Parts: sequence; structure tokens; C-alpha cells
Amino acid sequence: MSPASLGELAQRARAAAPSLALASGAARNEALCRAADLLTEASEDILRANRADVDRARTAGSATAVDRLRLDTRRVEAMAEGLRAVAALPDPVGEVVEGAVRPNGLVVERVRVPLGVVGVIYENRPNVTADAAGLCVKAGNVAFLRGSAGALESNRAISRVLREGLAKAGLPEDGVLLVEDTSHETAREFVRLKGVIDCLIPRGGPALISMVEQHATVPWVIDGDGNCHVYVDGSADLEMARRIVVNAKTSRPSVCNAAESLVVHAGIARDFLPRVGSELVEAGVELVGDGEARAIFSHMGAASEEDFATEFLALKMSVAVVRDLDAAIAHVRRYSSGHSEAIVTRDLEAASRFVREVDAAAVLVNASTRFVDGGELGLGAEVGISTQKLHARGPMGLRELTSVKYVVYGEGQIRT
Amino acid sequence: MSPASLGELAQRARAAAPSLALASGAARNEALCRAADLLTEASEDILRANRADVDRARTAGSATAVDRLRLDTRRVEAMAEGLRAVAALPDPVGEVVEGAVRPNGLVVERVRVPLGVVGVIYENRPNVTADAAGLCVKAGNVAFLRGSAGALESNRAISRVLREGLAKAGLPEDGVLLVEDTSHETAREFVRLKGVIDCLIPRGGPALISMVEQHATVPWVIDGDGNCHVYVDGSADLEMARRIVVNAKTSRPSVCNAAESLVVHAGIARDFLPRVGSELVEAGVELVGDGEARAIFSHMGAASEEDFATEFLALKMSVAVVRDLDAAIAHVRRYSSGHSEAIVTRDLEAASRFVREVDAAAVLVNASTRFVDGGELGLGAEVGISTQKLHARGPMGLRELTSVKYVVYGEGQIRT
Repeated sequence: MSPASLGELAQRARAAAPSLALASGAARNEALCRAADLLTEASEDILRANRADVDRARTAGSATAVDRLRLDTRRVEAMAEGLRAVAALPDPVGEVVEGAVRPNGLVVERVRVPLGVVGVIYENRPNVTADAAGLCVKAGNVAFLRGSAGALESNRAISRVLREGLAKAGLPEDGVLLVEDTSHETAREFVRLKGVIDCLIPRGGPALISMVEQHATVPWVIDGDGNCHVYVDGSADLEMARRIVVNAKTSRPSVCNAAESLVVHAGIARDFLPRVGSELVEAGVELVGDGEARAIFSHMGAASEEDFATEFLALKMSVAVVRDLDAAIAHVRRYSSGHSEAIVTRDLEAASRFVREVDAAAVLVNASTRFVDGGELGLGAEVGISTQKLHARGPMGLRELTSVKYVVYGEGQIRT
Repeated sequence: MSPASLGELAQRARAAAPSLALASGAARNEALCRAADLLTEASEDILRANRADVDRARTAGSATAVDRLRLDTRRVEAMAEGLRAVAALPDPVGEVVEGAVRPNGLVVERVRVPLGVVGVIYENRPNVTADAAGLCVKAGNVAFLRGSAGALESNRAISRVLREGLAKAGLPEDGVLLVEDTSHETAREFVRLKGVIDCLIPRGGPALISMVEQHATVPWVIDGDGNCHVYVDGSADLEMARRIVVNAKTSRPSVCNAAESLVVHAGIARDFLPRVGSELVEAGVELVGDGEARAIFSHMGAASEEDFATEFLALKMSVAVVRDLDAAIAHVRRYSSGHSEAIVTRDLEAASRFVREVDAAAVLVNASTRFVDGGELGLGAEVGISTQKLHARGPMGLRELTSVKYVVYGEGQIRT
């Protein structure tokens, strides 16, 4: 069977959207649980398909790609568990967000409804196929997926199982659709499916994000970079600050909510920097700092302008010493990517000003930046972390995969 | 003084954004009230500037353009009143949208914050300059305005007054910025000011909307067409239905929430169509219908497929007779532009199904589509009506000109 054209898939996505949107929460949950069971049952097939992808990547010689691609029984089981966890979350669809009676007697409600067709364009990691599709279906949307060429066999096997889960729950299989043509031309066409895709979520590197910004004609929400700072104020509990900085930098350096930059108040820098610096260096962190930081703690290189602007996603951290809160806020505002920014302080005014004046998806007082995550903040699951301000900001959960509809009940009112 | 380049204006917009965002609600309100007073005082200057625009339009020979452009003392006063009304609305900034304590003791709040820089690109009507800028400033945003060439002198005079209002309230004048270069090239550059404009709102015809969809690299919210239907169910109170249809079609035919299409259940068509048809025809409405409608009421032409898909914005209405609720919903789904759709019925199931199954920004039961408006639905004022599903759907008020920020308060928590 030759793969369906993008145009044909687009039509099928639109055709399936009303059924998904009107399906009961019970049916949508059943589809996810059935798919979870089927993932376990089809584990062999999925791993076989994955081996084909991995072999191709290995021939191409990319060790990183191989690592990100490779599935094993445990990872397949984790996908199944993920689907069950999403099924167990409260249903966002139908929530009455607010309601009031107008002076003329009209009852006005805003009701949460599915977006319709959610397009996800993503790179490598085949688990995104199950994770993203699970959240889309839970929120009553069609998941229209365009994965990468490198993961095609794995994505095919996983999406086949998700479609079977939908069918077993009496829902249209086309609630999950995979674009099997992985050419760049098709990716561009995909992001221009105006009238088909209600929301596009790109998950991937800078080249993908830039392609979407340049070419998309459909509305999108972007999962952005995290150049996150921890500012240690002059009044901070230095022991607390040390724990937070070390946790924010080293607990998982490859993720977007890891800290990339340490900003230290000059009043406590002499006390604090050698303490935290030694511990970071011992943990394998490469430090680069400004002149003042290096004068206090010599085990660091000189930080360039670019270092301060870089999301390292690795055991590397930039360090700046600032003269006061104003300078700290100015530094953070200058280099922040608008993801997660933390202050450690005992001073109420410093905390309030930092919270108000730093413009980011999340601002934290006396806590590690690593908490900025859908699960940790109570959203249950996340489809990404938005650093834009429209529609979704910060971790995007089920709510961010919905829209609202005004419902107005009258008794014959007309407008005069 | 030569007009500032777009690049220079963009820098000034970004530079002013933090001051606007951090200004007190009192200061923002004062700026609007001062600007309102100044509009009245500067009425002469504004009308003189407007006459220059009108004279140019008249030379070009466009009567419609002249009508949309022309200001008089009453219209200037209406702009001033509009600013005062917006100043009197509750402040959206700082609202704690939700909050909870996590099991580990972290206090997590979502707080409403300004978007930053709101770009508005719009055609003719100079009152948009005051209306849009007023809402943007009230919500703590910089209003970055790009009006049309035809209204340039009027827009200059009005924006000068708004800037003076800001200065008198101790806020940066650059809280309102007008792009005076009205070339198409600059419009394209404007919608590509990535990193400068946080939200773009185009207000204008299909050519403008299409330009934005094709070229914008910044996030946008589109004010879309309204091909609105009224469906009169078999169980409807026909007297109520007549009043609603006539109101929805004739009370202001040129606006997007006016009804464009009447859908009638076959069971009551013979009773209802001649009644409502005569009244519509008397009110000057041109009717075009399908075969069944014309067989019942002969004073109408034949409706083409295109008629059913058209937002007339005039005294014209398409009419279809449908055999049952399913056919009615199918008809509405097929031709709806997703704006406002109404049912007139006494049947609870019909009402529930119509509300659930019709996918539009607003669905109304036993009320005129004309109520879908920021003021009527209780938003106070509106900057447009969104027919997209991301960020804003339906009337966009102050809330839609804001974003949210996660604020997390800890006592030293780290992630394990």
C-alpha cells in the first residue's frame, strides 16, 4: 500500500475531528488504555521496527541519534504507563470556565472544547509519538503527527497501535494520523495546512523552530530554549542557595529547566562563590565567569558575552557578580530566554521585585528552576514548555490543548 | 523631523515595554483619562488633519473610503468617551488566575501579566488608533500601531494626543507608537518583527489577513469573517423566531455578527417562511434560497453554492430548508466561518445537540447573533472578535491582551 498523500491525510484529519471532539470522556480514556495494552502486546513488533531505524542511524554514524532513537522493553512499557496516566487525568473537555447572567437575562457561559486538529512536528525520539498523541486524544483532538525520517519505522509501528486502540474504543482510527512522507517539502506543506491544523506544536531544535516561524501559516505554540538563571541575593541563606544552585545545575543538565547561569550579589560573593564553586567543579561543572567572579574564585575561565547568552544543556555554567538587585534584574532581563528564573533571598522586597520585574514563563523564589515542569507544577503531564506569551506560557498540559466556546442561552432576546 | 525608521521604533517599543508593564493601574488609567481630555481639547487639530486625509480620499474618488475616514466633533468625543470607559474597567494585570500548594510545600500561582508589545495593523477608520491603543495601555502593553496610508494625518494627530496623555501620567510616551511609513514593504517587515512584537492583531479585509498569514513570523490573533446562521427548528416559537431572524439580519447588516443565512426546518417552513420572508423583503432584504425555500416563498432568487458560503455584510440573506436537525447541523458545519451560530427551538435535545455539535466561537439558543460582542457579553470593550481557536476565541477584551506567568514560592526546595 503506497503511503497516503498529505492532502488525503489532511482530509481524513478534518473528517475525524468532529467524532473525537464529541466522543465521551469514557471512550477517549478507553482508547488510551486499549492502546497501552496493545503497546505491551506489540512490544516485539515495535522493537523490531525500532531496530531497523537504529541500524540505519548506526550506518550513518551518529551516536547521539542512536541513543535518542533506541527503544527497549522498558521504554515501551514507559510509553504504555504514560498513556494510562493521561487517561487517569481529569477530562478538560466540557469544563464551564466561567458563566454569568447578563442584565437582559442572557445566560453566558464559556465552555472548554477541543482545539480540533493538533499538528505535531518533531524529531527523533519515537516516544513523542505515543506521548503527544495520548494528550491530544485525551483532550478530544485529532493528533496529526509528522515525525522524522530517522524514526519512521518506529513511529509507524507505534501509531498503528494507537489507531488500533481508537478503533477498539469505537472511535475513528484517524484520530491518530502519521505523515509517512518525511521530506522537507512535505514538512513545509504540513505547517501551511491552513484550515486543517488548528494548532501546530513543533518539538525540536533551532532549525525546526525557525522553519516553523518562517513558513507556518497555521497558529503555533513554540517550545523554547531555557537560558535559566539563579540569582543569589545579598540576604540569601547561603546554605539554601548552595543546595538550590547545585540542584538546578547538576540534577539533569540536559533539560531546558536546568540553570545555565549563576548571578551573585557582591556583598556575599566572597563567602558564597568559593563554597558553591568548589562543589560545582567537583560535580564536573565547567565554570566561566566575569572578572569579579574570577578574582574571587579562580577555578573558572573567562565568560564571553556569548557564554552568558547560551543555553549550554551540559555541565557548564556562567557566573556573574552584580553590585545590587537592580543590576541582578538587569542582567537576567538581558540574557533570559523567558523560561525559568530563580532568586534566593530572605528579603521580602527583593523577592517581590524579582517576581514582578523579571519577565519569564516562571519565576521562582527560594526553589530550584528544575521544578518548572508539568508534573511538578500539578498539570499531570505536559506536551512541552512554551516560552511565548500567546495561548500557552510555561508547561503546556491538557488545558493548553483545548480552546473555549461561548454558549449563550436566551428566551427570545433581540438586540436593540 | 524625518519619521523614525521601523527598526528604531521597534527598539523604542521594546524599551518602553517594561515601564508600561510595571506601571500602577492608577497611572495607566490616568494616562487614558488625560488622553481623553486632550482629545477634546485638540479636537480642532484632529479634524484639520482628518480633512487632509478625507480630501485625498475624495480626489481618489472612493466614497466608501471617505465615509469610513471622516471624523467630526461627535466622533472625536466618542473616542474620548471610549478611553474613559476603558479606564473605568477592572485592571486585568496582577490577577491571580489560580493557585495551589504542591505536596512538597511549593506555592504555585498563575498571575496575569501584560503581553508586552502588541502590534496592531489596521485599515482606514482612524478611531481604531484610539480604541486599540486605549485597550493595550490599560492592559499594560505598548501599542505599536501601523495604520493605513489613507488615514495617516488623522492617525498622527490622534497618536500624538495619546502619547501626551502617557507623558502627563508620568509614563513613557513610547507606550503608543505609530509607524508613519505606510508602504507595503514596511507592513511586511512589521509582521516579521520577531522578538519585538509579542502579539499581532490584524484588523482589516481579506488581503490584510492573507498577508499576515503568509508573512508573519510573530504570533497573531485574527479577527475573522462571520458567515452567521440562524436555524429555526421544527419546535420553535415562530413569533420568537421571526423577531430573532429579523433582528439578526437587519439591525446592523454591515457587522460580522449579523446573520447571513436562514436555515428552516421543513416541518414549519410552510408556516414560517412566508411570514418572516415578507417582513425581511419589506425591510429591504434580498433573499436567495434553495429550491424548497423558493417553492414555499417565491420572492427570492436562486441561491448558488457561493451565496451560502458568503458573508454579505449587506441586506442580503441566503435561505435553506432542511429536513431535520441533523441536516441543519450539517448545513451549518459546512458553511460556518466559526463566528456565531444560533438555534431557535423549544426542544431541549435540539438545543443541547446544536450547542455541542456546532463548532463556532459562539453558539446561541433563542437569542440574536447580534449579541456576540464584547460589550454585550460582559467584557466591557473589545479589540476584535477572534474566529481562531488559539489564545482567544470570540470577543477579545482586556483579558485577551494579557498573558500569564507562573510564580513559585519555596523554602529551599530542590528536585530529587
